[in-house]
Parts: sequence; structure tokens; C-alpha cells
Amino acid sequence: MDYDLVIAGGKVVSGSGTTKADVAIRDGKVAAVGSHLHGRERIDASSLLVLPGVIDAHTHFRLAASGMVSADDFESGSRAAALGGVTTFLDFAAPAAPGALAEAVAARRAEADEHVSVDYSLHATLAGWDATGEEAMRALVKSGIPTFKMFTAYRAQGWRSSDGDLFSALRASADSGAMVMVHAENEELIGFFQGEASERGWTGAPAHARTRPPIVEAEAIARAILFARETGGRLYIVHVSSAAGLERVREGREQRANVHAETCPQYLLLDDSLFERSDGHRFATCPPIRAREDAERLWEGLAQGALDVVATDHCVFDGGQKAAWGGDYRKIPMGLPGVELLLPLLYTAGVHGGRFPVEHLVRTLSENPARLFGLWPRKGAIEAGFDADIVLFDPSLEVTVDHERLAMPCDYSPYDGFRATGWPVTTFLRGTAVVRERRFVGFPGQGRFLAREPLGETT
Amino acid sequence: MDYDLVIAGGKVVSGSGTTKADVAIRDGKVAAVGSHLHGRERIDASSLLVLPGVIDAHTHFRLAASGMVSADDFESGSRAAALGGVTTFLDFAAPAAPGALAEAVAARRAEADEHVSVDYSLHATLAGWDATGEEAMRALVKSGIPTFKMFTAYRAQGWRSSDGDLFSALRASADSGAMVMVHAENEELIGFFQGEASERGWTGAPAHARTRPPIVEAEAIARAILFARETGGRLYIVHVSSAAGLERVREGREQRANVHAETCPQYLLLDDSLFERSDGHRFATCPPIRAREDAERLWEGLAQGALDVVATDHCVFDGGQKAAWGGDYRKIPMGLPGVELLLPLLYTAGVHGGRFPVEHLVRTLSENPARLFGLWPRKGAIEAGFDADIVLFDPSLEVTVDHERLAMPCDYSPYDGFRATGWPVTTFLRGTAVVRERRFVGFPGQGRFLAREPLGETT
Amino acid sequence: MDYDLVIAGGKVVSGSGTTKADVAIRDGKVAAVGSHLHGRERIDASSLLVLPGVIDAHTHFRLAASGMVSADDFESGSRAAALGGVTTFLDFAAPAAPGALAEAVAARRAEADEHVSVDYSLHATLAGWDATGEEAMRALVKSGIPTFKMFTAYRAQGWRSSDGDLFSALRASADSGAMVMVHAENEELIGFFQGEASERGWTGAPAHARTRPPIVEAEAIARAILFARETGGRLYIVHVSSAAGLERVREGREQRANVHAETCPQYLLLDDSLFERSDGHRFATCPPIRAREDAERLWEGLAQGALDVVATDHCVFDGGQKAAWGGDYRKIPMGLPGVELLLPLLYTAGVHGGRFPVEHLVRTLSENPARLFGLWPRKGAIEAGFDADIVLFDPSLEVTVDHERLAMPCDYSPYDGFRATGWPVTTFLRGTAVVRERRFVGFPGQGRFLAREPLGETT
Amino acid sequence: MDYDLVIAGGKVVSGSGTTKADVAIRDGKVAAVGSHLHGRERIDASSLLVLPGVIDAHTHFRLAASGMVSADDFESGSRAAALGGVTTFLDFAAPAAPGALAEAVAARRAEADEHVSVDYSLHATLAGWDATGEEAMRALVKSGIPTFKMFTAYRAQGWRSSDGDLFSALRASADSGAMVMVHAENEELIGFFQGEASERGWTGAPAHARTRPPIVEAEAIARAILFARETGGRLYIVHVSSAAGLERVREGREQRANVHAETCPQYLLLDDSLFERSDGHRFATCPPIRAREDAERLWEGLAQGALDVVATDHCVFDGGQKAAWGGDYRKIPMGLPGVELLLPLLYTAGVHGGRFPVEHLVRTLSENPARLFGLWPRKGAIEAGFDADIVLFDPSLEVTVDHERLAMPCDYSPYDGFRATGWPVTTFLRGTAVVRERRFVGFPGQGRFLAREPLGETT
Repeated sequence: MDYDLVIAGGKVVSGSGTTKADVAIRDGKVAAVGSHLHGRERIDASSLLVLPGVIDAHTHFRLAASGMVSADDFESGSRAAALGGVTTFLDFAAPAAPGALAEAVAARRAEADEHVSVDYSLHATLAGWDATGEEAMRALVKSGIPTFKMFTAYRAQGWRSSDGDLFSALRASADSGAMVMVHAENEELIGFFQGEASERGWTGAPAHARTRPPIVEAEAIARAILFARETGGRLYIVHVSSAAGLERVREGREQRANVHAETCPQYLLLDDSLFERSDGHRFATCPPIRAREDAERLWEGLAQGALDVVATDHCVFDGGQKAAWGGDYRKIPMGLPGVELLLPLLYTAGVHGGRFPVEHLVRTLSENPARLFGLWPRKGAIEAGFDADIVLFDPSLEVTVDHERLAMPCDYSPYDGFRATGWPVTTFLRGTAVVRERRFVGFPGQGRFLAREPLGETT
Repeated sequence: MDYDLVIAGGKVVSGSGTTKADVAIRDGKVAAVGSHLHGRERIDASSLLVLPGVIDAHTHFRLAASGMVSADDFESGSRAAALGGVTTFLDFAAPAAPGALAEAVAARRAEADEHVSVDYSLHATLAGWDATGEEAMRALVKSGIPTFKMFTAYRAQGWRSSDGDLFSALRASADSGAMVMVHAENEELIGFFQGEASERGWTGAPAHARTRPPIVEAEAIARAILFARETGGRLYIVHVSSAAGLERVREGREQRANVHAETCPQYLLLDDSLFERSDGHRFATCPPIRAREDAERLWEGLAQGALDVVATDHCVFDGGQKAAWGGDYRKIPMGLPGVELLLPLLYTAGVHGGRFPVEHLVRTLSENPARLFGLWPRKGAIEAGFDADIVLFDPSLEVTVDHERLAMPCDYSPYDGFRATGWPVTTFLRGTAVVRERRFVGFPGQGRFLAREPLGETT
Repeated sequence: MDYDLVIAGGKVVSGSGTTKADVAIRDGKVAAVGSHLHGRERIDASSLLVLPGVIDAHTHFRLAASGMVSADDFESGSRAAALGGVTTFLDFAAPAAPGALAEAVAARRAEADEHVSVDYSLHATLAGWDATGEEAMRALVKSGIPTFKMFTAYRAQGWRSSDGDLFSALRASADSGAMVMVHAENEELIGFFQGEASERGWTGAPAHARTRPPIVEAEAIARAILFARETGGRLYIVHVSSAAGLERVREGREQRANVHAETCPQYLLLDDSLFERSDGHRFATCPPIRAREDAERLWEGLAQGALDVVATDHCVFDGGQKAAWGGDYRKIPMGLPGVELLLPLLYTAGVHGGRFPVEHLVRTLSENPARLFGLWPRKGAIEAGFDADIVLFDPSLEVTVDHERLAMPCDYSPYDGFRATGWPVTTFLRGTAVVRERRFVGFPGQGRFLAREPLGETT
Repeated sequence: MDYDLVIAGGKVVSGSGTTKADVAIRDGKVAAVGSHLHGRERIDASSLLVLPGVIDAHTHFRLAASGMVSADDFESGSRAAALGGVTTFLDFAAPAAPGALAEAVAARRAEADEHVSVDYSLHATLAGWDATGEEAMRALVKSGIPTFKMFTAYRAQGWRSSDGDLFSALRASADSGAMVMVHAENEELIGFFQGEASERGWTGAPAHARTRPPIVEAEAIARAILFARETGGRLYIVHVSSAAGLERVREGREQRANVHAETCPQYLLLDDSLFERSDGHRFATCPPIRAREDAERLWEGLAQGALDVVATDHCVFDGGQKAAWGGDYRKIPMGLPGVELLLPLLYTAGVHGGRFPVEHLVRTLSENPARLFGLWPRKGAIEAGFDADIVLFDPSLEVTVDHERLAMPCDYSPYDGFRATGWPVTTFLRGTAVVRERRFVGFPGQGRFLAREPLGETT
């Protein structure tokens, strides 16, 4: 009886295959995977998939933006995550000034540490860069934060990094174990298209998409990739939304740039006809949701591995908050809820829908983010020595999405009415159940902050 | 005491990572990987790498060619394999006529089954193709032989397939779970260059390489890939030897052809200056060993994954047999011994030499061939449910290659004098040691013929 | 009164522009282009286009093939040419044996010299190649024949060159001022598809196209281009018929191969639905006419310059001769009449149809073939010093094609019913009218054999 | 005696060939090209090349910049042009405000019209763009100015256009007969590298090149090309200086962008080792002169046609003016003298040096700029109807460049000591000699302002 718990007889899925096996857990870690394993506790998983916990690499809980604070916090957000099979999320710490990275991390941890019920870490948001940047980057990498978010847009909010900043940060990433994550939109093009919209008197939700057409994203991606090729830097493009953006990523890879890319469920499952609806403004996020054809290209890119990760860019503004737009698309609080639905949406449309096998889902949601973000070999797989972050997933459970039954504090869901086949039922965090039979059984502070590893050659 | 054996405390390597773990074996299979595993027997592997058994996807034991029979047979060959950490080899069954595939397999099994000390399977060699080909292919796939070797050269030997044969076989492979393996050399170009050599009076060993320059290989590869693109067929190029050949493979992949490729140790480690030696004829194999620069490009392609597999094309003609050439390069019995050295050569030059991590070695020698040839998830990894084909590898053992100390019955080795760092010490076949502390402890008939799976979407 | 003739006031077209100018002719050559030119004779061309005479780079008059001789000879063929604005044609001399090139040229000249009413030259057809090939090539280049046709198919007729032959000839072309013209079809694939057709009982005209699908052409083109890249040889692909074939040409150019390409009116204007007609066999030629989509891609490639030349592959078998097929597509005498219609078809569908400007037509039909085939700066332009081969073309003349009104001795035309806008009305050969107001006024022997220049760097 | 002048017996060069011919001139235009032409005056050109007058598409005479005015004006500048065989130059009119284009043109013409001794036209410089831009562009195209210069850098000088401006101008160019010329340097990257230089205490001339490395140019070119692809706009990249920049142009063309490109003699003939000299600051221009390897790649690109035009970017600051730098590279008045040497430098290094034939020189210096900038079929060739802008060029004349013997008012030349083989001896402007035997015989006001044509499909 060396093991604390054995999850018995499920189909254990990794990025490379699926095996019917027992999973033994001891001291919060996977102790063994195999047959004939016995422990003090035993859970029968015989009709279930046993998946590594999902890593949502892109969340914004309690985000201050648009003059308000988003509708959930680390407690409610991490609870929704757990219910969705997400055992690790990566949120952001944004410093008040370029040099104040450590302070920003401390402040954000103060908001989170005692409230999270799943594990998490933070990316450092860089609003600009200066001569001290490289040293600060190296220090933060050492302290366990190797990923740095930069924006090529949002000058008004003070978030935009100049091309020089971006070039310099990428150059610094090349030999420091860091990676630069880029929100890629061309600021000046947006300004131009918004100017045109003004002249034409466009103010409604459709103008949100029209003023950020795919070239806005595609150009900024191409630029970041050129800098990565020139510097040898590690680059990660967040929320690729368009076929044109994806095409730039493909070209970068053929030219041996060290570039990786993420897309989000909203770009795969929704399309821009939504903006024509009377509540179209609720679907506004940046970059905007695109045409159906773009979504199809993204699915292809995901299946082929041109996109590495699907994360949510979760950011909840509820109907009341969204109403602040007052009919002007430029005032819409941008963002969509998502963390709770990442796994069932992707399983249903991706695996059940025949776009890729379940092993590819695990690569996309667990293995790839773990590797890319310095959590491997701790998170992302069910192998001896890994944290026992495990989701029991019932592939036969049919659920129609209804925001009223979700834990995310939002009075609508972009996916209301979506018919899911397959849903997470039980979630273990380091060997302890935080969700059992779709009910949350965790508690605030159960999750831990994760200091991550510097990123290596193979990233 | 549920397990028969526990290999304790080694570094267990897979294609995706390395973990310090125990490996429990029961009934010949990996039963569990983890900690706190106990069995009736326990082997301490604490300073060793625990690798999946190597799969040599390309051997020719007891090959009748050039009017003689190669110098080893299934007994001596498989013994050398075991000593080299190879637990599965894939040899060839060549039918006397296109339609006689099943008979050829039966005949070859009669030569092998009672003599092999490791597991093996057979590729079906297709010397031509006819209207019955597709049906025969489907039948053979069902019977466990999903891979079919074709030659674009060797008309005199009756091995050459026409372009129509190749096209048709590839087309048939697209939906039958089969894969076509191509020996890619342009017959007519070889004839042309040999004609030129005759005019110039070239007969020595250097003429072997000069009459098969890289374009001979590159063109045939390009052609096969065009056919694979057109038909959607599964294609595997055996023994890619040149930078130009590799470049064609890369192009094929960028154009989404379903093409995979193999190279061999001789193309990575040797170069064509050998042909200038007085015993240069001993190094003759087809395609020929190339310039140093080609080898460097192949190492790069291997590290980047453009080449999937390293196999040996093992075919032993000893010095006496090679002497039959009588000074005429066209009469050299073609082939080189290799199966016993595959793992230590690749580990030393690849991993120890810093060209790629040990995980990539495992992908190249075990995981990829298992997946590509229908042995996954039975062979190729140390995970619960897989056959317990396991090599204990001592990365600190230094060995200078000397043919006299090798089991391969050959009175020379192309690698004599090569200083290896790292050598396999113990080999388990389905949980039973066949080599222990570098001594063979197996017996003829211990190995089994492997009926393989049809090849699937992800091949 | 220094000039013999002034063609006054027409729109003189060159590859680079169109000018309203007089053209003065003296001693059979263009003496001046400009204004205020006066001569002993004056022709008013004020509503007409003044074009350089068309060079049809690919004709087969009096071709012995399929056990018969094609229906026209050099007299009737060259008369039709003159009526169509063609002042130079390039036909073929096929030696009985590889070494008999000079004899073949002499024999063919004996058939032509006294009968042609326009100028002509010959390509040397190479049915094979041997050790004497390079020397023979150099000798023929010196004697004025720098272009050599090779076939990758037609083994039964004895025309096929092996890959070694092709490689060697291309290699020889690299520094000898020669160019190799390739009829690119994969012999073995054709054989394979014909075998399949037999099994299915296909014998009718549609089987002609089905047994030579685009891969047949595309593969052979790709192969020839690889050889040209390897050798630095000059390569010209005759009668590109398919989008897939064109794509290979484009790739070759991007990779800096010295490759040029031709298409024919039948591939631009007709499509394979014709084979379904009861007289479908009449439209059989090799390679076969393709789908409409292929034709569209060829028009694009022509407009973009990826295809350099349009020539006719003129080869007349009349209805009686075509009837020899007896219902078996393999017995159809292959070929289509064309020389008389080249200019009006291309003008109508290309220039009048808006696909490219008239200057591009002149590049395609006159300037490019003159440059590529060693006739520049003698033929191909209306500039001082060039032969006064000039066509007066009426762009407003509307003509419905009717084989009964054509000079080509054929009882049908693939283009019967085609409504042309624009037609050549007067043709000058070296300053003398051979056609005047659409009536032939020349005589046999008026044309001359052209010894051509070696091909240079810029070819 | 219909002609005013006949230039007799020279080698008349066009982009497509060279002919020994007379050129007859009447009323300032080429009246005829041919033999047996007689006029009132006759000039023997029998040992000379007869070239179309050079079009320098990029000059800055009397440029106000860096707080000073450049050292020549339209009188001295156009005199130097004439002596160098340049019969047309294209300078720039820079409006004080985006809307003031017409005023700027008028003002610039006031500086030039009465002073120029060769013909000229103006590009409109756009410092920004606004809602009135498209209409203003269309009006200017109609008035004869179809080319619009934009800068992606030089914000401090007020010249920088935003990405929105650039996108919008390119979009407007797609159907308005306009072309956008882009000075492509990434402003923010320059700022970043200058900041680094400050930290390191770099101030000398080498810092000029170090703070504008090739990525600065390459990125801006890539961006402009993406916008051109998206909009279908006509794009011309001025002064491509680096291999990386050229590579982006090549990619753009392969992707069918409507992009053309220019380089300058300084990038072909000089290299960045000059900046190490004590007078290194004199060689500063933007973008900076690059490494020798870049120059070699540019020569290749020029020979292959990937670069369309060579122009000078002529801008004279003499030694005294350059001295204003005071040891700070940021204060160097940027620019180099060039208009007088364009033809002899390119002939010597390009044609005499064996890099391309003289016909390619004529394409590069006359035909291509005439076509691209709306001067065809008036300027750029010696054909009936074209302006009789003709240079008699002596290919055997050897001249060592010495600034003291040049007309350009500059007390140094970047090319001092360059040994030219071939020099222009006589220049005709519209049929009248402005230079005769290397002596200027023209007068101010002899040149005319050229209203140009809208740019068409083939641009």
C-alpha cells in the first residue's frame, strides 16, 4: 500500500498515445502508470478518459481595463477553471513602469495566492522596455517567470511596445531562457480604419471587426517574426485569429524562425456574423472574431501543428459591463469568458468532430503549453514524477451549454446552446480532488504559484 | 509481488522526456512505470539509461545477391542485433513473382522463425506489380505485413519496378493501410554514368561513387514524391544518402506529401574518401557513401526531424566475398555490416556529440520506426502495455570498435577504430534478458515473428 | 528613293511598344522605321497593325507517323503558313540513327527547300544519344542547327531517349550553344494507365485523355528540369498542356533552372469535353487536350510570361486518316492542323479578349521564338537590319473559322465556328508580298532554309 | 532633306538589342531609325554607342534639409546631369501640409523651370496623408504627377507617414494610375539602435551604419509589400541597399505583389569600410552603405531583374557642409553627389565588368524608369516618335574620376580615383546638343517640365 490513490482502468491519454492503465498517486505526484497498482484509495475510471490537467496559458482574472475591473477574481475564476478541467492557468502581472516587474508580480500574487483553488503562474507584461530591460528579464527568468508579454498596439492604455522594444526584448530572449509573447496588431492601421469608420458614421458592433481587418494582425505577426529571425529570439504569438495571420506563422516556421502560436476557442467556433446581432457588442474581443473561412483555416493549422496551443484569453465582462459601450464600438469592454469551457468545446468540435485525435487534444491543451512555458516535466503529462493533475473525462456525456449552469460569473455565454459531447467530471490537483462528479470540492488557497523553468533549446 | 521483474532507478527515456523511475515487468510486458514498484526480481539500473529496444527497420540477413549469400543468417544476425540493443528487426521477403507474396513470406519465415533470438517482421519486396497487386497488397496488410519495398533500379536483377508500378502501388497504399518503401535510384542515369566510366577506363572502387552521383538518388526521390502527392499514397524513402536527396524530401513535406525518410549510419559517419583506400571496395553499398558535406546536411536533417529513422541496411559480405569484385566496381557485392553498432554509433556521434538530445535518439531508433511500421503501441516505448523490450545502456562506457570483438561474422568493420562513448550492456526481449553484461544469453527461436498493424492516418 | 518599299502609317508593334510609323524596306530588309520615309513603292497601312512575321516554332509538315504520312507537305503547309501570317516555321529532321544527324537534315531539306514559300529551319530530333552525341551536337550547332528535340516517351516508335541520354544532352547543351527541347511524357505511366483502360474495356476517344492524365506530363517536366538544374543545360519544354505541368515550370524558374516553355492553341482554346463527341477522336494529339480549368491556368501563365512561346505542333491528319483508328484510341493518328490559325486565334482570344496587350502577342509569337531559337536579330522584330518579314493585320476584320475556306488540306478544323476578330491580310517575306489581301501570291522555293546562331547567355 | 539631323552609323542600343543604324531626328523627335537616312546635318557616330538619354529617377537638387540647402541648384545640377548623359531627372516637390500638393509643385517648378538645361519632372512627396489624400492624388495624377513618395521614418522632420497613411495611399494607387514610392526604414528600430549607441558612447561615422543595420530596411520593405499585396497598390522601393532588403523584394514578387525596386551606385560600388576613414562622415547617406557582400547580392539582383532601376539619390553636401556634423553621426547632412557619374559608373562596373550586357544597362537606366514613371513612349528609347534624347557614348574612353574635373559643385567625390572605361561624350536633348565632346553647350531653361502619364496595368 505504497500509494495514496489509484485511478484504475481508465484510458490514459498522452500526446503520443492512449493506454488502458492504472495511475498511482503518492505525495501529490504520479507515482506509477501501469497495471496491478494498488493504493489506499481506488477510483474506478473504466469508462472514462484520464487526461492530464489542462493548462490554460492565457487568462485575465480580475483585470483592470476599460475603466472597470473584470467580473471574476482569482477565487471565482480558478473555481470555474477547476470545473472545466483546467488545473493550471497562466495569468499576467503588469508593472506600473517598465522597471517594476518584481513589484508587479508581488502585487498580483497578493491578489491571487490565497484565493486560487488550482495552480497558476504569471507572465510578466512589458509595457515598454528600456536599458534595464534585459537585466530585469534575466532576473525574472531566474525567479521563475520566463515569459514576457508585449503589445504592438494599445498606445493609449500605455501598453504598446515600440518596434525597438520588441526587437530588443526578442534579442534578449535568445540566450536568457525567456520567451516573448506578442499581442500582434498594428496600432496605426487600427487608427486608420477607425478614422474611416468615423467618416462613414459607423459606430455599431460590426465596426469593431471592420476596423481591425486581418491585415492588422497579419502585418504585426510578420514584423515580430522578422525580428525573431534576426535576433534568434523565442517568439509566441498569442490569439492568432485569422487565416492571414496563420499564413505568416507558417512562413516563419519554414524560414526556421523560433516562433510558436496560440489560437482561442472563439476564433475556432464563432464567426463575425455575430456582430450583426442586437447583442453583437458582447462578442467583441481583440483581435476580433473573423469570418467562417478563417476559422476553417485555423482548424487546419491546429490539426497540422502550425498552431501549438489553444488557450482562452479568458476575460469576463458581464452584460452590465458590456452595456457601458453605449452604442460606440470603441468603448466596448473587450473580452470573453472561456476558462470553464476550453476542454469540452475543443473535445467536442476537435475530437468528436473528427478534426484530430484525442492525443492531439492533449498535446494542444497540456503537453505543448507545459513545454513552451517552462512547466515540463512537472505539468502536462501523466507520467511518473509529474504532478498528479488529472482530469477524468466522460466522452459520452452530452451537455448543452447554458451560462446559468456555469460557474463563470457572467450573465451570458458566447457558447450558449452549444451541444457538447464529452465533459470533465472529476479534477485532481496534485492528487487531491478539487472537482468530483462535476461539483467543486476545492477551497481557496489550495492552488499554488508555480515558479517556472528557464526555457531551453527545444522550446 | 505482482510483478516478475523491476528495473529500478534508471533514467527511463522516451521520445518526449527522461524520468528517473522504476519499470515493472509482468508477463513480458511493461506493467508499470513509476516509483515504489516491487517484483520478484529487481535489477539496479541506477547509473544507466533505460531505453526502449532499438528497432532496426532495414536489415538483410542471409541475403542472396551478387551470386552469393550474405555472410550471416538469422541466428548470427539476430544475436548481433541483441548485443547491439536491437530487439526488433525488419527484414525482407522477396517473392519470385509479383503474385507470390504469401509464398515468399512463408519461405522467409521458414529461414528465420526457429533461428531468431529477437523479434522480427518482414517487409514484402515487390519486384514489379500487376493487376493483382492491389488485392495482394490488401491481403498482406491484413495478414500483418503493411510495408512494401520497391526499387526504381536493379532491372538486371529483376527488382526494378516501373513508374507505373510505383504509381499504382502508391495509389493502392492511400486507403489500404499500406506504405511503399522506395529504394530511389535512377536506373538509366546509373547506366549512363557507367557507360562514361567505361569510356574513361574507370574500374576501381571510386567509380562506384562516381557512377551514382547524388542526382541519381535525388531525381528518383523527387519522382516518387510527385507520385505520392498525386495519389495520396504513403511513401518511405529508404537510405537517403545525399544532401540533394534530403532536399527533395524537405520539399515534399512542405508540399504536404505523406513522405517519410530514413538514413543509415554509413551516410552519417563515413565519407567517400574511403573509396581511395586499397580496400575501398569493401565500403561499397548502394547508394554510395557521399562527401563529408552531404553527411553534415544529413545530421542537420536528422536533428530537425526531416529524416525520421536511422536504420542500418545491414548486409554482410566479408572480405573474401568482397574480393570477388576482382578490381571491377560493378562486381562488388554491395552492403555493409551494421546492426550491432547502430545504437552505440548513433549515441556517440549524435547524443554524446551534441547533435541532439537522447530523447531524439529514442524517437529515431525506436518510437518513429514503431509508429511508421505498424508496431505501435506494442514496440517502441517503455509504457504500460508495451512489450518489455528494454536496453540498459551505460553512457559512460568507452569502447573502441574492433571487428574481432563484434558478433557480426565479418572480418572487417567500416567503423574499426571508432571510439564509442556509451554502449548497451543488457537487453531484455519481452521481459527476458537476451544479453546480460554484454554477453549473449538468449537462444535461437526466442524471438517471434510480428504481425503488424495496418498503417493509419497519422503515419 | 533609296527604299524599295514603304509600308506607311500603320501601327508598328514590337514586344516593347506600339508606334505609328512608316516602315522602309530595302534589299529585303527593314531599312528604317520612322516618319517621312519614301520609297519606290508605298502601301498604306493606316488602319492596320504592322506586326513582325509570326514564327511557328513547332510544325510537322509531311510527317511520317502512325504508318502514314501527314496530309500536307512543305508546299501546302508553307502556303497555309503564309496565309496565317507565319513567315518562318521550324520543323524537324529526324535521323534514322543517333549519329545520322547531318544526313537527316540533308534529307529533310531535300523535301522542303524547293517547295517552301516562307522561310524555315529545322530542329534536330534525337532518338537516343550515344558517345558521339556531344560532338555531333557541336557540329550541328556550328552548321546552324542549335536545337535538339528529345522524347521521354514513344519507345515503340524508337523515339524515346533514356534519362541518361537526356541528362547527357542537357549537359552538353550547357556550353555548346545548344538547347534541348523535350516532349515530356512519362512512358511507363502511360503504359500503366493504358493497361488499366484495357482492363476496364475503355477504347473510345475519351480514353486517350484518361490514359495520359496531367501527372504523366508533370513528372516528366519535373525530371527534365532537375537535370537542367544539375547540368546547367538549356531546356525548352514543348507543348505544355496542363496546370500541373505549368506549375513544375514555374518551380524550375524560381530555382533558377534555365528552362523555357511553350504551349499551343489547342491547350488554350479547346477542352476535353470534345472527346465525348462522336468525332472526338479527331481532336486527339499528345499530350491530350485538358480540362477547362487547365486552359485557364495556361492563359494566366502565358500572360505572366511563365510560358514563353505559343506554337502549333501543327500536324494534319484529315478525317480519312483519322478514321484509321477504328474505334481504338491507341490507333488514332495524333495531331491537329494549326499553322494557318495561330495568329488570328491568339489575337482574338488573347488580345481582343483582354488577356494581354498586343505587344505581348508579338513577344509570344515573334520575339521570343526568334531569341530562343537563334534567329535574333534577323527575325522577330521590325527594326532596321531585320528581315522584312511583316504582317499587315486588320484588327477589325471578323471571320468565322470554316475549314473549307482554309488552305490547310484538312476536311475539318478543331476551330470550325470560332468567331475571330482580327485577321492577317497581307504577308511580306523579306520585303516581298507572299500574301496580298488574303490571297496567296507567293511561289514554291521562295522561302529559304535558315542556318541559325548558337544560343547565348541570355537564352 | 526631311530630317534635321542624322546621327550616322553608331551602334543604337535598346533594351532588346543593338543595331548598327542611323538615327534621324526631326522637330526634336526621333523620326526614323535605319539605313540610308539623310538630313540637313550629319554626325558620324561610327565608333560610338548611341544610347537613349539616361533618366535619373531620384535626385534632390537644392534640397533644404539638416538646416541647410544642398550645394547645387537646378542650374548646376542639370548641367552636371547633361554632362553625365542624363537627359531627364525626377526630383521631388514636398508640400508644407498634406493638402498643399499643387502649391508645392508650383513652388518647386518656380525654382526649376527657368534654370534646367535638361528635361525633368517631379514626384510629389507626401508627408502624411489624410481624408483628402485620395482626391488630391487623383488630381495630381491628372495634372501629370503620378508618383508619390512616402517615408516610413524621419518623424522629427515631419516626413514620416504612418502605416495607416501608407496603407491608404497604396490602396488609392491601385486604381488611380498612381504609384507609391517608399523610403523604407523602420523609425523605431533606428531610435532603438541610436539609443544603444548613446549608451556605448558611439558618436563617430561608423555609428551611422551600425544604428541602421539591414533589418531596419528589410522590415520596412516587408511591411510595405504586405500592404501592397493587400490593397493591390503599386509600390516602388527607393534605394534598396542591403541583401536582406532585396530578399524581401524577391519574396514580394514571387507572391505577385506589384512591387518594383531601385538601388543606387553607392550601394553597388562602395562599402562600409569607408566609415572607418577620417573623412568617413562624408559617405553618410540613408540608408547607409553596406558590407561588400550586400553589394554583391545587389549586383546579382540587378542582373536578374529583381531590381528594376538604378538612380542616384543625388544630394550634394560639400565638405564644408558635411563638417557641420562636429563628430556626431546624427548631425551629418545626409546625401552623396551622383547624377554626373551614374552612366559611366554603371557602364564600367556593369557592362565593361561583365555583369550584364549593354542592353540591360539601357533597360535599367532608361527604359525601365520611363515605363515605371509614366514617360513611356516619350522617353527611354530611340524609336520613331520618341523624344530625341540621345547620348553618344565612347566605350573606349578611359577616365579616372576626379571631383575637380566634374561639374557637380562638390569638393570631393565618393568615387575619386575610380577608373572608368567608357564615358558619355555628346548629349542631345530633344534633338539639340546640350553637351558636345564633353563640353556643356546648353543653357538654363532649355529643359522642360514633363507632365507624365497615369500608370497602367503593366507598371
